[in-house]
Amino acid sequence: MRMVEIIEKKRDNGTLTTEEIEFFVAGYAREEIPDYQAAALLMAIMLRGMDDRETRDLTLAMARSGETLDLSDVASFVVDKHSTGGVGDKVSLVVAPAVAACGLPVGKMSGRGLGFSGGTLDKLESIPGFRVDLSVPEFKAQLAEVGLVLSGQSANLAPADGKLYALRDVTGTVPGLPLIVGSIMSKKLAAGADAIVLDVKVGSGAFMRTLEDARALAEAMVRIGEEVGRRVTARISDMNQPLGRTVGNALEVREAIETLHGGGPADFREHCLVIGAEMLLLGGRADDLKAARVQVEEAIASGRAWEKFRQLIGAQGGELRYVDEPERLPTAELITEVRAEEVGYLARVQTDAVGMAVVALGGGREQKGDPIDHAVGLVMHVEVGDEVEVGTPLFTVHANDIDRREEAVARVRAALSFSSEPVDRLPLFYNRIT
Amino acid sequence: MRMVEIIEKKRDNGTLTTEEIEFFVAGYAREEIPDYQAAALLMAIMLRGMDDRETRDLTLAMARSGETLDLSDVASFVVDKHSTGGVGDKVSLVVAPAVAACGLPVGKMSGRGLGFSGGTLDKLESIPGFRVDLSVPEFKAQLAEVGLVLSGQSANLAPADGKLYALRDVTGTVPGLPLIVGSIMSKKLAAGADAIVLDVKVGSGAFMRTLEDARALAEAMVRIGEEVGRRVTARISDMNQPLGRTVGNALEVREAIETLHGGGPADFREHCLVIGAEMLLLGGRADDLKAARVQVEEAIASGRAWEKFRQLIGAQGGELRYVDEPERLPTAELITEVRAEEVGYLARVQTDAVGMAVVALGGGREQKGDPIDHAVGLVMHVEVGDEVEVGTPLFTVHANDIDRREEAVARVRAALSFSSEPVDRLPLFYNRIT
Repeated sequence: MRMVEIIEKKRDNGTLTTEEIEFFVAGYAREEIPDYQAAALLMAIMLRGMDDRETRDLTLAMARSGETLDLSDVASFVVDKHSTGGVGDKVSLVVAPAVAACGLPVGKMSGRGLGFSGGTLDKLESIPGFRVDLSVPEFKAQLAEVGLVLSGQSANLAPADGKLYALRDVTGTVPGLPLIVGSIMSKKLAAGADAIVLDVKVGSGAFMRTLEDARALAEAMVRIGEEVGRRVTARISDMNQPLGRTVGNALEVREAIETLHGGGPADFREHCLVIGAEMLLLGGRADDLKAARVQVEEAIASGRAWEKFRQLIGAQGGELRYVDEPERLPTAELITEVRAEEVGYLARVQTDAVGMAVVALGGGREQKGDPIDHAVGLVMHVEVGDEVEVGTPLFTVHANDIDRREEAVARVRAALSFSSEPVDRLPLFYNRIT
Repeated sequence: MRMVEIIEKKRDNGTLTTEEIEFFVAGYAREEIPDYQAAALLMAIMLRGMDDRETRDLTLAMARSGETLDLSDVASFVVDKHSTGGVGDKVSLVVAPAVAACGLPVGKMSGRGLGFSGGTLDKLESIPGFRVDLSVPEFKAQLAEVGLVLSGQSANLAPADGKLYALRDVTGTVPGLPLIVGSIMSKKLAAGADAIVLDVKVGSGAFMRTLEDARALAEAMVRIGEEVGRRVTARISDMNQPLGRTVGNALEVREAIETLHGGGPADFREHCLVIGAEMLLLGGRADDLKAARVQVEEAIASGRAWEKFRQLIGAQGGELRYVDEPERLPTAELITEVRAEEVGYLARVQTDAVGMAVVALGGGREQKGDPIDHAVGLVMHVEVGDEVEVGTPLFTVHANDIDRREEAVARVRAALSFSSEPVDRLPLFYNRIT
């Protein structure tokens, strides 16, 4: 088999065979196929697409490129949850402990933030001592003991994805649907969960900008799950404004803690209840979504979700006094409230620009490996549809540097559009795909 | 400017600016842009295309990536000729001396064969002692003294093309129209000719398989020539069977010598007269094609074309006794005539397969840098439309190895299709674009 012929076939709109896809993925992972040939094929895949069978083969080849976890010896049924990435998305911090508190083991490998999109690992590292680099035996041991683990991805899991993702990032091939599907699902399949709830974000703060694209992605991932015998449900959720009020690592941990204590913003709480209920339903812990939702509500109301969160933090080395007294978490020096200068209704939030404002503050990354300031971020005081008057607080910037603060203020101001006419509120969710 | 944004723009069907194209070409030539980014952009260009302005900018950026020759100090008007590559195409060997014999200087840089397509340099190297690696001063001195030079391309001429071509070859991006145009025309522009006649081949032994593709390529190259102030004429010529009777290096040199002596196959001779006439017309040496053609005919009939060929060979170190007595040229050991086994009309020749049969004999290259056996090749005895009976000679194989001979016989046999109905002869030329 010759790599150049595989490239030519896809370039000419052909359908790659299972063997050709395996040859490419395995060869690239073993560094037998050079980056430039992989880059040409990735671009051809982006522009020509892949059918369901090719996408499944790509996903499976990537999943098989390294170790695959078998969690059946430590838990009879493990559920995972994955978000395609957004701004202010701290859902895992609440949902994972709430679901685990209902008795369904949650073993989740999360990622780091890049660009406008935050990452669960960065948020958790706001808590001094918290370790995200668990070994596979540590991951499994904690899953058995605590029923809950939130860790970084093992380097041995779907290594082809790591290599391919790095290449996609510098070759303009990040947004290709089969490539996104392969990247997400290969890691999920390799990580050994029996069921996966996918939170597919759509909007100005998501990778998928249109409902059509989000639906195509969600459907492709659900189909792959089906074909390989994993239970998968996808929810398409709105990302046309930040989720919850906070954007920035320690600020988001505080908001998650409030929500675990029964408080938190209504939209964020509702989002957690919906995703948590889907996880319980998929895990066979409830007969329908309604009953599942009641269980998540009770786990939070009873304090069991909070207790599970504390167990998680303790098990992974986090210092509990920081979550018991969240005011101890990293705090920025310059806290500035920004107020409305005109009258109107908040009509639109350019949400990726809000995310990039946090990157400008130092709370996110331009490039992989950049250090992060956990203290900085934003608190939003308005959401789409809110009426403001001159002087209404719009958002608060938490900064550690005056120039960066000014840049963030300007970016967020520019990201907010007002209308003189009343504006509808945004939905939390669109489609459910199962 | 960031390379990834340039890739994304073309990926999304955008139009690249002059500055973006220059940034890419110059950066790649200087090895500041990695192969994998160049490969992704090349694939995006292949699948999204480029408009006229982008194609011109690409061509000019490639032409400017190295030295550009100014020949005005050695010749007032220099004409060049370029074929897009085919099987049995030894036109330059006859036309260049014939035109130079008419008083129009011909300074031509040629290429080597690759795959089914032969190369003028390889053919000339059948002649012991002949040097193709002239320096620029040598090239210019010979152009001034002899009025004719056939050399390899200087390494300093359009170096971006050399790098890009090597990358295209391994990334499935050879056939992209703007890339082909850029590759051919950048070298021609850098080589300093004032006028260029393009022989664009179409058919089963050419890179362009359809008349539509060939016309698009020819038109794009003529437009670029116009825009940069060079006179360019393109002829689209048939490559659905080998040109002339011979395929293989020394065999083709012998056929060219016969033609320079006034003999040679009628189709090949006619092809040379047409291309030669176009060169003289473009060089302002005749008022119309008819008058130009008469000049070429006279140059051959008078022996002046032959004498110019001898001067060329002598000037570049070739031993003249090999061209004066061409039976001295490398000769294969195993000469096998293959005859028809059925009755019918030759209907189709899979011409690239004929070219690959010569590669199988050792007379061409699978990969750049492979050595070549100048003695081997084929002599075709039939052309499309010919009627054959059982026992009619079809072709003769000149081989130096029994296994290779058998492979070549099988390949050429399989490349010939016969019909029981009479078949029209093929035209020599299709369109003329000026």
